[in-house]
Amino acid sequence: MNYLKKVVMLMFCVCCSSLIQAQVHPNIMLSQQNLPAVRSGVNSYPLLKSSYLEVKQEADNALKNPISVPVPKDGGGGFTHEQHKRNYQYILACGTAYAITQDARYAAYVKNILLAYAAQYEKWPVHPKRENSNPPGKMFWQILNDCVWQVNAIQGYDMAYNGIPAADRKTIEEHLFIPIVKYITEDSKETFDRIHNHGTWAVAAVGLTGYVLNKPEYVQMALKGSDKSGNTGFMKQIDELFSPDGYYTEGFYYQRYALLPFMIFAKAISRYQPQVQIFKYRNGLLAKAVNIALQGTYSNGAFFPVNDAMKDKTFESSELISAVDIAYADISSDKGFLDVAVRQKKVIVSDAGLKVAKDIAAGLTQPFSYKPMWMSDGKNGDEGGIGILRYGAGKKQQCLVLKAAAQGMGHGHFDRLNILYYDNGGEVFPDYGAARFINIETKGGGGYLPENTSWAKQTVAHNTLVVDETSDFKANVKEASKYHPELVYFSNTAAIQVVSAKENNAYPGVQMVRTSALIKVAELQKPLLVDVVTAASATSHQYDLPFWYLGNIIDASFKIEAVKDNLKALGSNYGYQHLWLNSQNNIPQASGYITVMQGQSFYTTSFAGSSPFSVKLVSIGANDPQMNLLEGKAFMLSQARANNQTFVSVTENHGNVDPIAETTSGAKSSVSGLSVISPDQNKTIFSFKVKEKPYTITINYHDKSNFIQIN
Amino acid sequence: MNYLKKVVMLMFCVCCSSLIQAQVHPNIMLSQQNLPAVRSGVNSYPLLKSSYLEVKQEADNALKNPISVPVPKDGGGGFTHEQHKRNYQYILACGTAYAITQDARYAAYVKNILLAYAAQYEKWPVHPKRENSNPPGKMFWQILNDCVWQVNAIQGYDMAYNGIPAADRKTIEEHLFIPIVKYITEDSKETFDRIHNHGTWAVAAVGLTGYVLNKPEYVQMALKGSDKSGNTGFMKQIDELFSPDGYYTEGFYYQRYALLPFMIFAKAISRYQPQVQIFKYRNGLLAKAVNIALQGTYSNGAFFPVNDAMKDKTFESSELISAVDIAYADISSDKGFLDVAVRQKKVIVSDAGLKVAKDIAAGLTQPFSYKPMWMSDGKNGDEGGIGILRYGAGKKQQCLVLKAAAQGMGHGHFDRLNILYYDNGGEVFPDYGAARFINIETKGGGGYLPENTSWAKQTVAHNTLVVDETSDFKANVKEASKYHPELVYFSNTAAIQVVSAKENNAYPGVQMVRTSALIKVAELQKPLLVDVVTAASATSHQYDLPFWYLGNIIDASFKIEAVKDNLKALGSNYGYQHLWLNSQNNIPQASGYITVMQGQSFYTTSFAGSSPFSVKLVSIGANDPQMNLLEGKAFMLSQARANNQTFVSVTENHGNVDPIAETTSGAKSSVSGLSVISPDQNKTIFSFKVKEKPYTITINYHDKSNFIQIN
Repeated sequence: MNYLKKVVMLMFCVCCSSLIQAQVHPNIMLSQQNLPAVRSGVNSYPLLKSSYLEVKQEADNALKNPISVPVPKDGGGGFTHEQHKRNYQYILACGTAYAITQDARYAAYVKNILLAYAAQYEKWPVHPKRENSNPPGKMFWQILNDCVWQVNAIQGYDMAYNGIPAADRKTIEEHLFIPIVKYITEDSKETFDRIHNHGTWAVAAVGLTGYVLNKPEYVQMALKGSDKSGNTGFMKQIDELFSPDGYYTEGFYYQRYALLPFMIFAKAISRYQPQVQIFKYRNGLLAKAVNIALQGTYSNGAFFPVNDAMKDKTFESSELISAVDIAYADISSDKGFLDVAVRQKKVIVSDAGLKVAKDIAAGLTQPFSYKPMWMSDGKNGDEGGIGILRYGAGKKQQCLVLKAAAQGMGHGHFDRLNILYYDNGGEVFPDYGAARFINIETKGGGGYLPENTSWAKQTVAHNTLVVDETSDFKANVKEASKYHPELVYFSNTAAIQVVSAKENNAYPGVQMVRTSALIKVAELQKPLLVDVVTAASATSHQYDLPFWYLGNIIDASFKIEAVKDNLKALGSNYGYQHLWLNSQNNIPQASGYITVMQGQSFYTTSFAGSSPFSVKLVSIGANDPQMNLLEGKAFMLSQARANNQTFVSVTENHGNVDPIAETTSGAKSSVSGLSVISPDQNKTIFSFKVKEKPYTITINYHDKSNFIQIN
Repeated sequence: MNYLKKVVMLMFCVCCSSLIQAQVHPNIMLSQQNLPAVRSGVNSYPLLKSSYLEVKQEADNALKNPISVPVPKDGGGGFTHEQHKRNYQYILACGTAYAITQDARYAAYVKNILLAYAAQYEKWPVHPKRENSNPPGKMFWQILNDCVWQVNAIQGYDMAYNGIPAADRKTIEEHLFIPIVKYITEDSKETFDRIHNHGTWAVAAVGLTGYVLNKPEYVQMALKGSDKSGNTGFMKQIDELFSPDGYYTEGFYYQRYALLPFMIFAKAISRYQPQVQIFKYRNGLLAKAVNIALQGTYSNGAFFPVNDAMKDKTFESSELISAVDIAYADISSDKGFLDVAVRQKKVIVSDAGLKVAKDIAAGLTQPFSYKPMWMSDGKNGDEGGIGILRYGAGKKQQCLVLKAAAQGMGHGHFDRLNILYYDNGGEVFPDYGAARFINIETKGGGGYLPENTSWAKQTVAHNTLVVDETSDFKANVKEASKYHPELVYFSNTAAIQVVSAKENNAYPGVQMVRTSALIKVAELQKPLLVDVVTAASATSHQYDLPFWYLGNIIDASFKIEAVKDNLKALGSNYGYQHLWLNSQNNIPQASGYITVMQGQSFYTTSFAGSSPFSVKLVSIGANDPQMNLLEGKAFMLSQARANNQTFVSVTENHGNVDPIAETTSGAKSSVSGLSVISPDQNKTIFSFKVKEKPYTITINYHDKSNFIQIN
């Protein structure tokens, strides 16, 4: 525990046991003292104005519709689920509208709907659609959603507080909020004390309620766990869920999700107990976490979908709006945050949103700065991590993500040393993400589908090496959680960005190293993606390296002869049962290429191996009786039998297709003649030509001073 | 022959035999007399300015690079193909730049490159990559491309004419243009005299050359055919290739392509022989043709891909830019053309472009007016046609296209009574278009692939009825060209738009009628797509009705159990060999539904039949050894055995998915209980409910005064 940390923990001990100070309302995202400035700001600063008008529109919609508080019945996406979700949005919107306008109708709405909940809540049993995978709530099928409800509702209540008669407040607090806190902290104690994003929502719900209801007891539990020991609770979550760099172990999709309660609760702590200096806790961990969340996106704003992730998610999502606003206003004055806020097209109607909108209006925005980086995983930063290489900006940005992080708990995928590759505004070698139709009730109630386990989590669903048609750790989470990959090397110079990591435990007796680099050569305008995968074992194995691609194969060094009829599944387990084997070609010369037309240009992947192998073309869809899987295609380098295997690939983006003018240029790659010269375990040497200029690349795995040599 | 037509033909006889008047240069798209205005306009009107800067950039690129006139060698997309294409673009750009700037370097470039061609052209043999499908050129593998080259190059020459020394002009004319005309009119006489878009490019090339070189002989041949009889040539093409409504029988993709030479040559005629009043010929046919080309697009600007068509093509393509500019400047002052020009983001640097850019700058633009319409096919307008229903504007526009046109010659598909359905900015029930990777040399030289015949043209590749797993007319073009569907009914009111057509020859002994309607009911904001297909025969047949869809099926009235392994082709011929049969469900109650999530909303198609049938889920990909086919999925209503069959469907767009906010609403359709009440051949009666409100619809095929009744 560092010095600051000790001070903070001490502060809590001193402050929390005494009464929480100055009980004014509102006092979370919007504060009483700042209200006049925000009220004037909604007329002065365009982004705050448009954001406020949206909130007010939502509040006015709420007023127009009869209040509906149905008895909980449906799973995710179903009617009662969506209605209770809508209700907390209405409560938050009306609370905000009341704070800004002081129009009594908005406070009355908050009062009435909360009274309607208070009249029923205690009677509701545990949610009937409970599932075994997650503990149930009372309003929703998962306690998680109940906590989200409370985090939002308590803020709306805080903002409408002064407009609700005291007697009604008493009813609401005694028959709704206090029972909710009881349900969270007692009936759902396990979730509340869990070091996990569900735990964060739970402690934020309870802690915020504690501040607003002036119940230090709640705040104590939220900060230090239900037994107040400090072994669990908010501080422990900050300590353990993030690496020192600010990476959240479940991955970026959940980092985004977890950030909201972290940031809102931290904001409340900073408001009620400023002496704690929560934003400085653990060397300013929360600011780092916000930055890492943003660095965990491609230049189109989409989060890298490592582990379970919905792929449409971008930093425009509401969680990141709150996080970015608070980060800018309360932690760091990085003007790149303003760029993100502009792209989010929204601020929270709050003290923080005011500052962001004001500074944007003042023209202070600077481009958000994406940086090549290694972000460590593990609470001590020693459990592998994620390497990100980037070249160029905006739509032209090339980006390579090497996932060498720890397992990431239950949402983790078995994708050690997976790569994701982006260019020209989107994915080139995509990750499948999660198998889930979120909120579509007819599809497994909107939750993760069985194919998330049988397909999406399996190794072969990723762009990484699969040994013996099984998955890392035989797809056993518990086993996988014991080990993590290790960083071998990371470097970022103008001409070469390179990241290298190893994994020795995913397959017993097999040592794997992957080295990916973006290399700018003089002959080409854009860098080449150079990727080297080595596996070494004392015994013989099958080694498969799939490259998932988008678009259509328009050329190859071999003649494709796809299966015409009786298409067969490639395997029977570990995701292979979901693959159709469309074709298979031997590559006797151990070198070849595939050219894919994607969008308005081409990608040629030249590939070579340390010994002859085959190329399998596969597509997703076998053994999927309910058609739960999405389309997907890969070319897979496959070595049927070898102790050691090296696969080298060089991917070039080239040419241009203008479908409207019907013109095409540069359909042929400038790279040729790739071959592996030495597959030695200590160094890999390979060569190729770019427009007839020969290149020889040596990777010295054990020499950090001369890791990659280009001649 | 109407009166005006007679006058026009007479004019030609009088004028063409005498010498063509006033030989000034330039005098086609840009005229000597208008040059001062255009020169000033490129500085005054933003759209003309940006368009000119683009042309000048191209011209400056030309100057920067050494002239390259390679000996023709490669097919479509290959190096020499693209280089000769680039050369005519350079000639045109430099000609334009010279006309505007009078900078001698541009004229010198035109001179030098044309001299380089003149030094070689006569030595070139017929193109070595000639194919049997199309007559060869000398520069390009198809004579078509040689004609396109000449149409462009002669304009560039005309504009640079005054900057090229007379002796060089003599060389260029004698050793390039005259031999080209000779090759077109003699060696390629068959193409030149063909009533077909290739013929139009040929006559335009020859006619424009005739005007510029002052050779009335050429103009005569261009207008009236190589024997000057008038049985072929430009006027005959205007007479026969378009319907009286202006629809070009090959379909919109080729209408776009054919329009350019029609419009440019017509412009030249109007300039050199204004007394002919070419734009008034055949009741202003060319103006109608431009309008129909635009009406043949969805609101995103993409042409309806009926027959062979590349699907990315929009009205932003260069051919339509010329056509729209000329149409606005010389024929019709429809201010909606300005809207299209704005979306094209470009005008031709020309007299017409000047007028368009000037009027846009003056704020005269009005929205282009899409209209529901029936456009007849056939030179007399009596060979069926295309019905277009539209509701709403912009991205919200719902659009239904019923293709009941004649065969459309060699590029025609066997898709009688096919429908295409668009909504929310894109396709809902798409047409596959053509099987072709245009200009991708590795894919069949960039031309139509074998799968264009085996798949894309076949009936089952479309959203229309297939009888006995064969195609219309057994996919025989000659047979199909003898017959055409017939319009039964078209009507367009505020609440109902309906089109109905019949086809009695595609399958001997089977009478088919299809009736499609957009019907606005009070309960819903957007209209329903109601579609009724009937087939009647004295004998028993299999009737399949596929609906090609985009997105993912998320719900159905039956339990889908997709084939897990050993996926099999559905059939062996007529496109069925390319379909994988993914699942098959019996619909014993003769009624059901399928819900597809597409983009950010849902489409539920409720369907019912006159007797029980099955639903087959199919996808594209079987028997495609070279992987030439694109992905595609359909649900197919299939009646295994019946004399008569009626299929009714009601498609509703509903709900909303916000993937960033992770919210979903309205995933269930409001339509329920669809059933066929009476499948009588004279009338179809069916009923369904919308939010519990019952509807009964009667279609009275033989009563035009009461064709569709809704109760």
